[in-house]
Amino acid sequence: MKEISGGITSPQGFLAAGVRAGIKETGKDIALIYSETIAQVAAVFTTNQAAAAPVKLSKQNCQDGLAQAIIINSGNANACTGQQGGEDAKKMIDLTANELNIASEKVLVSSTGIIGKKLPMGKLTAGIKQACSSLDVNNQAAEAIMTTDTYAKALAVEFEVAGEKIKLGGIAKGSGMIEPNMATMLSFITTDLAIKQELLDAALEEAVNNSFNQITVDGDQSTNDTVAILANGQAKNKIVSKEDDGYNKFYQALEYICQELAQQIVKDGEGATKFVEVNVKGALNKKDADEIGKKIANSNLVKTALFGEDPNWGRIVAALGSTGIKVELDKLEVEINGQSIFGPQEQKYETANNLLEAKEVDITIKLNLGEYETQVWTCDLSYEYIEINAEYHT
Amino acid sequence: MKEISGGITSPQGFLAAGVRAGIKETGKDIALIYSETIAQVAAVFTTNQAAAAPVKLSKQNCQDGLAQAIIINSGNANACTGQQGGEDAKKMIDLTANELNIASEKVLVSSTGIIGKKLPMGKLTAGIKQACSSLDVNNQAAEAIMTTDTYAKALAVEFEVAGEKIKLGGIAKGSGMIEPNMATMLSFITTDLAIKQELLDAALEEAVNNSFNQITVDGDQSTNDTVAILANGQAKNKIVSKEDDGYNKFYQALEYICQELAQQIVKDGEGATKFVEVNVKGALNKKDADEIGKKIANSNLVKTALFGEDPNWGRIVAALGSTGIKVELDKLEVEINGQSIFGPQEQKYETANNLLEAKEVDITIKLNLGEYETQVWTCDLSYEYIEINAEYHT
Repeated sequence: MKEISGGITSPQGFLAAGVRAGIKETGKDIALIYSETIAQVAAVFTTNQAAAAPVKLSKQNCQDGLAQAIIINSGNANACTGQQGGEDAKKMIDLTANELNIASEKVLVSSTGIIGKKLPMGKLTAGIKQACSSLDVNNQAAEAIMTTDTYAKALAVEFEVAGEKIKLGGIAKGSGMIEPNMATMLSFITTDLAIKQELLDAALEEAVNNSFNQITVDGDQSTNDTVAILANGQAKNKIVSKEDDGYNKFYQALEYICQELAQQIVKDGEGATKFVEVNVKGALNKKDADEIGKKIANSNLVKTALFGEDPNWGRIVAALGSTGIKVELDKLEVEINGQSIFGPQEQKYETANNLLEAKEVDITIKLNLGEYETQVWTCDLSYEYIEINAEYHT
Repeated sequence: MKEISGGITSPQGFLAAGVRAGIKETGKDIALIYSETIAQVAAVFTTNQAAAAPVKLSKQNCQDGLAQAIIINSGNANACTGQQGGEDAKKMIDLTANELNIASEKVLVSSTGIIGKKLPMGKLTAGIKQACSSLDVNNQAAEAIMTTDTYAKALAVEFEVAGEKIKLGGIAKGSGMIEPNMATMLSFITTDLAIKQELLDAALEEAVNNSFNQITVDGDQSTNDTVAILANGQAKNKIVSKEDDGYNKFYQALEYICQELAQQIVKDGEGATKFVEVNVKGALNKKDADEIGKKIANSNLVKTALFGEDPNWGRIVAALGSTGIKVELDKLEVEINGQSIFGPQEQKYETANNLLEAKEVDITIKLNLGEYETQVWTCDLSYEYIEINAEYHT
């Protein structure tokens, strides 16, 4: 597997567009992803009970495992918008299908931005028409899905399955409200691999669990989160129909794309000045490891200490002690960037001051109770987070 | 019941002291509370598994239901300090007992401040001796337990039980790391009521559940949280030995003291500019109501919106939709300061802009699913929170 330039239009047979409809104050705000032929689709959606109208419609249109286009707007989440919201999301689908001359059931729809405002359908209609007429090979869709992101996130890789070159590309947007189960996070992935839909489903679910579900910026969950993958088979490989070597190569590439995009989202977290990896090792089971990792990663006290470059392992230990999961203090070890700062015999508070100057910080927790481990990615909590979120809508 | 001036030395037979030992950079840092006669004691402690050494010793010394003094230091939590921490906490107890000429088993010890640093025992020893020799009727203990608090929190009330005047006084400190199950929160309460120890236990547990456990500043839990009450019986009332009218009057007074102190802690939350009460009504059970209330109160996105005076009910709905607890969006109603801003037929986003200008904000969630309700108190999330917590230890 090697990284190649490009994004979702790198795989064969995919086109995309990003245009400005005027929903956001500035920048592109309508993205369109299109496969020249009908593709297998798999998707994972938010578990928030206030799931937005587009999420509900996209779920329906994924049920037959086939799709051909995804229409996305940024600047307005079309969430908590009642019956009108459902009708507006349906109009987005129908208009896209009509312009592209494909069936409505083959179109997914996605929205991100402010909750509770009705979509400006006039602007959207014009924007969707423009997007449909400007499909091309480029990265503009990555720009058009951004909200508070400071840069566009796109990536592509190439690998071989039984002698055939396969390409896989992805785009994503964050950046606040990211947490387990994907909050205000959108990612769209394309591949020209030929693969059975059930395997595409399984691969996406596992890859999302090991990437997007392991990142957290502020512990809040969104109404709109979606990760969707289209696989159109245009690489002409022998269809991947079981968990063989070809599947494994695809899975590795997919997990790589998902982890890279997830980490980019964290690095671009609202106001983030540091990228933080929390490793939890020696847990009795994976669930315990995840819960402890996320408790630490979501702790405002830990995150402000990181921002202040204060090696306050006391806050780390307090956070992990408060989950209810069994912790034995006389077995516990904590390392920052590979240096032990807390252990049965040592509390190196005073000597750890220079450990947090790095932009990338690794916090490793060794519970020494069992064999399970996890990784969680997060960022620090800065003045700029407050600024962005106190003034987002006005 | 009426509020009277004073604090923990208002009830008969209680003396206290607050002195400076030099543990903190400035201000008093040793507090002592003393009853002239042995008192009934009840206490509630942190559930954090990294509970500090003083918590463990105080638990032991509460087991016989009797105590006579509480020695407290601020500036150093004596948490995660290993065997040495236990020995130091024991020394604090023994020294206090020796100076006061009482049994060590009748002394509780409590510490608050930075985690993971050994206590400066030289300074502490001198400070404890000074505190023991300066016991008096005053409010200096309330000052001496402060860490990041900006003002001392003390309160006293008077009520009658069967014709006898009873007094109840309390002090508390916050202010960050406050959450359900009491994080870096200390409160000490005194009363001259004569009451059976089992009833004192029951009353304290219920009052704490309805007060300190319902406040949250940043969702983090501490290693040191303690609420303790001493009842020395010097009011000479007929001992309260069952849940009768006298007990009810006492409970009402205790709950009032606990709620007032809890709310003061939130109002003095690190960087708080607004006091926020979240009311959750119409839940299927109390646990659901609490979980939803705390999810909203702990949401960084909700708290920054409050700081920015942005009536972003979308973030409120997103938070309550993400708990996993059943919510029906077509029954849900949200009010801010008594004005409906979200309901089955209305999304009043644009018209709600002036609702958050008040210093005190009431957010009411009507789930309309059942009969249970709760109240949670919190504050907003401001630039100053970051400043305080990024730079606390240096």
